[in-house]
Amino acid sequence: MRITALAGGVGGARFLRGLRTHLDRTPDLADSELTIIGNTGDDISLFGLRVCPDLDTLLYTLGGAIHEGQGWGRADESHRLQGELAAYGAEPQWFALGDLDFGTHVVRSQWLGQGLSLSDVTGRLAQRWGLPDQRIRLLPMTDSPVETHVVVEDEEGQRAIHFQEWWVRHQASIPAQRFVAVGMDRATAAPGVLDAIRQADVVILPPSNPVVSIGIILGVPGVRDALRGSAAPVVGVSPLVGGMPVRGHADACLATIGVECTPSAVAGLYEDFLDGWLVATEDEPQVRLRKAAVRGRPLLMTDRDAAADLAGAALDLALELKGA
Amino acid sequence: MRITALAGGVGGARFLRGLRTHLDRTPDLADSELTIIGNTGDDISLFGLRVCPDLDTLLYTLGGAIHEGQGWGRADESHRLQGELAAYGAEPQWFALGDLDFGTHVVRSQWLGQGLSLSDVTGRLAQRWGLPDQRIRLLPMTDSPVETHVVVEDEEGQRAIHFQEWWVRHQASIPAQRFVAVGMDRATAAPGVLDAIRQADVVILPPSNPVVSIGIILGVPGVRDALRGSAAPVVGVSPLVGGMPVRGHADACLATIGVECTPSAVAGLYEDFLDGWLVATEDEPQVRLRKAAVRGRPLLMTDRDAAADLAGAALDLALELKGA
Repeated sequence: MRITALAGGVGGARFLRGLRTHLDRTPDLADSELTIIGNTGDDISLFGLRVCPDLDTLLYTLGGAIHEGQGWGRADESHRLQGELAAYGAEPQWFALGDLDFGTHVVRSQWLGQGLSLSDVTGRLAQRWGLPDQRIRLLPMTDSPVETHVVVEDEEGQRAIHFQEWWVRHQASIPAQRFVAVGMDRATAAPGVLDAIRQADVVILPPSNPVVSIGIILGVPGVRDALRGSAAPVVGVSPLVGGMPVRGHADACLATIGVECTPSAVAGLYEDFLDGWLVATEDEPQVRLRKAAVRGRPLLMTDRDAAADLAGAALDLALELKGA
Repeated sequence: MRITALAGGVGGARFLRGLRTHLDRTPDLADSELTIIGNTGDDISLFGLRVCPDLDTLLYTLGGAIHEGQGWGRADESHRLQGELAAYGAEPQWFALGDLDFGTHVVRSQWLGQGLSLSDVTGRLAQRWGLPDQRIRLLPMTDSPVETHVVVEDEEGQRAIHFQEWWVRHQASIPAQRFVAVGMDRATAAPGVLDAIRQADVVILPPSNPVVSIGIILGVPGVRDALRGSAAPVVGVSPLVGGMPVRGHADACLATIGVECTPSAVAGLYEDFLDGWLVATEDEPQVRLRKAAVRGRPLLMTDRDAAADLAGAALDLALELKGA
C-alpha cells in the first residue's frame, strides 16, 4: 500500500513514527510505502546556515535520534558552538542550535551551496537516518525557498517577522494579524510531491498545525488540487482536544485566520478533500461534518504505543472508507 | 613604540605572545603597539565555511584559548559536529575541526556573507579575544581570497592540491614541485598593512615558515617594497635549529623552492631588507651574512618565559641596530 502524509514538526513526526510502527507490526501492511511531504515554511537562515526545523524533526524522530522530552532537536545534545556564537556577539540567540544539530545545518548548507536541490539534500540526509530502509520517503513540499512570515502589531508598531521569531522567541504571544508565505508565488511542488498524492492508496493528515504546517503545504501550487482529485480516502487527525491544541499554539494561529478553535472548524479548512476525521472522544458529540466521516477516540500520544494505536485508527478509518 | 610583525601560525603565535609578555613586563615598552600581519594563504573553505588557520591560531594563542599541547585549535575542545559530518558522509574528514573552533568559522562565514571584509571580520573576532585591550592589532595580509596550492606529482600523476591537503593530510610527504599562491595576482594588501610596515619603529619576523607563511606574505603586492623602504630595523628569527625546522615541514618547503635548509639560506630569502638575524647558538659559527647582523642564542620556546626571552632578544637586537 502507498500511504502519503502531509506533516509539520513534532506532532506529525510522532504520529508518523507511530504509523510506521503500526505498519511494521501488521503483517499485511508491513511492506507499505510511506511518503511524507514535509512543511518547509518554517525554514530559516541562521548564521548563514539553512535550517529546516520540520524536516529535521521528522528525520531525527524517524531516525531514532530525537530528544524525546522536548520533541525536537537531538538527544544527548550539547551547545558549545552556540556558546561561541554568543561570545562573538552573533545574532540571533533565541533559537537553540545544538552541536549535533549544527552538523545537519552545516552539511545541508554545504550541499545546497554546491547546487543540490532541497529534495536531493533531504534524500541524502534521510539515507543517514535509515529512512529508505524503513520504506519511508521524505520530500520537502517544495525546493523553492518559502518562509512563513507573521504580520504582527504591538507597541513597536506593525511589522512582519519570521514565523520562527514569532513562534520560538515570542511563543506566539504577540497578536498576529496574518501569515504570509513569502516565496510561495514563485514556488512549485518538489519532484514527486504531486504524484505521491495522486498515486496514493491512502492520504493521512497527522495532527499537525492546520494553519502554519498543513495550511502552508496546502498552499503549494497543485497540492490542494491533487488532494481534491485523488481517488484515495483522505483522513485527518484533529490537533485539538477539548477546544485546545494538544501542543503548540494552533489556537493563536486559528484566531489569526479567523477560524474557531474547534475540531469542526479545523475540518472545515479541509472540507473540499477530507473524507474522514478523527477527533477526541469528548469532542465527538459536537462534531457533525457534511462530507466526512467522524470517529472519536483518545488522541493523546502519551508514548510510542499510543501513537501507533492512534495512527492505526486513522488508517483503519481510511481503509473502511476505501471499502477495503 | 610601534612594532610590526609578519606571522604564520603556531611558531609565530607563540613568539608574538612572548613578545607581548616581554613588552608588558618592560616598563619603558609596556605601551608599545604591536601590529601583526597574518598569513592568509592557508585559508580554506571547508563544508562551505571559511577557515583561516593562521589567523585563528594567532587569535586563540593571544586570547588565551589555544590548545597548548598541539599549538593550534581550542583548549578543552570536542568534536561532536565533525562526527555528524562524517556520519553524513561529508568531505573532507582529514582536517580536524572542533565544536568551539566551528563557532569561529560559522560566525566568520556569516559576516563575510554579509559583505564584511576579512579585515573587518578579523577585527570583530579580535575584540572577543581581547586583542585591542592588549594593544595588539591583527591584520590579514589581504582581504582578497588567496590560497596557497601545491603542485605535486606521485603515482596519481601531477596535480595541484590545496596547501592544507598537502600539509595536514599528507604531512608534506608527497614531493612538491612548486607552490602557487592562487589569487595573488588580483590581491592587494589589506587596509593598514603597508602603513604598518612603513610607519613601524621595528619590524620583526618571527620563526614562521619562510616559504609558505612569511614567503606568502612577502608576495602580497607592496609588502616587500615597504620592507625594503622602511627606515625601521627588520630583525628575523631563524625557524631552523641545526639544519632542521623546530616545528613543521620547512625543510620540505625549502627543498621545493631549491633553497638549502640552513639559517644562512633562509636569511638569503630576506636579504634585500633584513638587518638582523637571530640564529641558534650552535648555528652561529656557520652563519655569515653580508648585510645583516647575526646573533646566536637558544631558540627553543619551551615555555612562555622562554618565548618572552627569545622575543626580547630579537627586540634588543632591533633596538641595538636602531642605535637606540
